[in-house]
Parts: sequence; C-alpha cells; structure tokens
Amino acid sequence: MNWLDEVKWDANGLVPVIAQEQGSNDVLMFAWMNREALQKTAELGRAVYFSRSRNRLWFKGEESGHVQTVHEIRLDCDNDVVLLKVTQLGHEPGIACHTGRHSCFFSKYENGQWSVVEPVLKDPESIYK
Amino acid sequence: MNWLDEVKWDANGLVPVIAQEQGSNDVLMFAWMNREALQKTAELGRAVYFSRSRNRLWFKGEESGHVQTVHEIRLDCDNDVVLLKVTQLGHEPGIACHTGRHSCFFSKYENGQWSVVEPVLKDPESIYK
Repeated sequence: MNWLDEVKWDANGLVPVIAQEQGSNDVLMFAWMNREALQKTAELGRAVYFSRSRNRLWFKGEESGHVQTVHEIRLDCDNDVVLLKVTQLGHEPGIACHTGRHSCFFSKYENGQWSVVEPVLKDPESIYK
Repeated sequence: MNWLDEVKWDANGLVPVIAQEQGSNDVLMFAWMNREALQKTAELGRAVYFSRSRNRLWFKGEESGHVQTVHEIRLDCDNDVVLLKVTQLGHEPGIACHTGRHSCFFSKYENGQWSVVEPVLKDPESIYK
C-alpha cells in the first residue's frame, strides 16, 4: 500500500499537521496538508502545507523566506494527524508565525484571560513586503 | 469578553488541541475540545477533551488512569488551535497513547513507508480492563 493511502484524509481531503522544532522541541505552528502537500514535503524535505484560505499549496516561506527544513515526518496512532520535526530557517531564532514571533502559540491563559507571553522578533511589515 | 468566546470554535463547536509534555517538550497526542471541555480543563487543571467517536466529554485518564495535569493552556495566532503543557501521570515514563506508548506519534516515514519507532511501554490490555 502506498504510504499516502495509509493516511486518513478528512472529508475535505486534509490532515492536521503540527510543526515542531528539531532540538528545542518547541511547537511552532499548526496547519493542514492535502495529499499533494504531504508528498511534496517528503520529496523536497521542506514543509509544504495546504492553505485553506487561499485554497492552494503553500510552500512555507514562499513569501517570508521562513522556509522549514523537514527532518522527520511522523503519523499518529489513528493515522489522521501528522507531526513534522523541522528547522525554521530565515532568522535566528526561527520565526514560524506570521506575527513575527518564534511560535504561533504565544497567547497563554492566565487569570481568566489570554495574555501575550512571547516577543515579536521581527516586524511583520518587513517580513511580508 | 469571556476568554472562551475568544476561541474560534469550528462548525462543530470544536477546537483542535495539541498536548505537549512539560519538561521534555515531547508532543504526546492530538485531540479536540468543545467549550465545556476547555472550561473544565482550566477549572480542574487536568486535560478534558471532547471525544468525537463517543460524542461526550472525555476526562483523559478516566479509564486508563493516565490523567494529564495541565500546567499551561496556550492559544495560537488565529485563536483556533489550543496547546496544552502537561504532565502525563499513571506510569513512568508517561503513557499518553491508547497503544501503551509514550506518544501517539510513533510512526515515522522512512524510505516510502511508515515504520513504528517507539516501544510499547505497557500492554494496552492491562491498561483498559
């Protein structure tokens, strides 16, 4: 059986994907892939997602230069979630989030509200010109 | 605004959730929450998910004893994905997966196929009696 056929794609032909930084193990972001995106990710060794808002393949870093090199592709016990181990290129430390932060998970629940607890490393206006 | 109203619940009233182990930063599992599950998680300091297959709240560990203590609740930049920092109780090292493994992400893509690369730490038949 083809490895791509073993993935349980959802009703929209997508699978959720977690990108985790190799080394620090930080969770950088969450996105989606379709079959073609996962195939291209494996072929190219860089993260290729499926953008639901733009309805097309999203070669991570295509605009920002913040490409993700992929070291490992993992699948979960239900075959319906993918985990990538990546190196976040383009800035040191790596910027995965479109807000210019290291990780997309920069809001933390504290005392009944969400607080921003991670700094902006680069002005998004200078990332997306 | 109530913090639960800031979460962008999907068409089914759910949000995807990533559980990450405090300390090791290992990604343990992926699940879903509805509003009540997230509220209870914050209230109780333990992970409460929404089981889509059983269509009810799932107090992680209710059968297995593998409860997850929650240290942090994070929200992503689009307000539509939750990240938990947890301690996985009930076994040392922690077992988050129903297969008796540490993490649900035990299959790795290698040479055109998925290979199991993590050991079973405890027979699932002795976990779910």
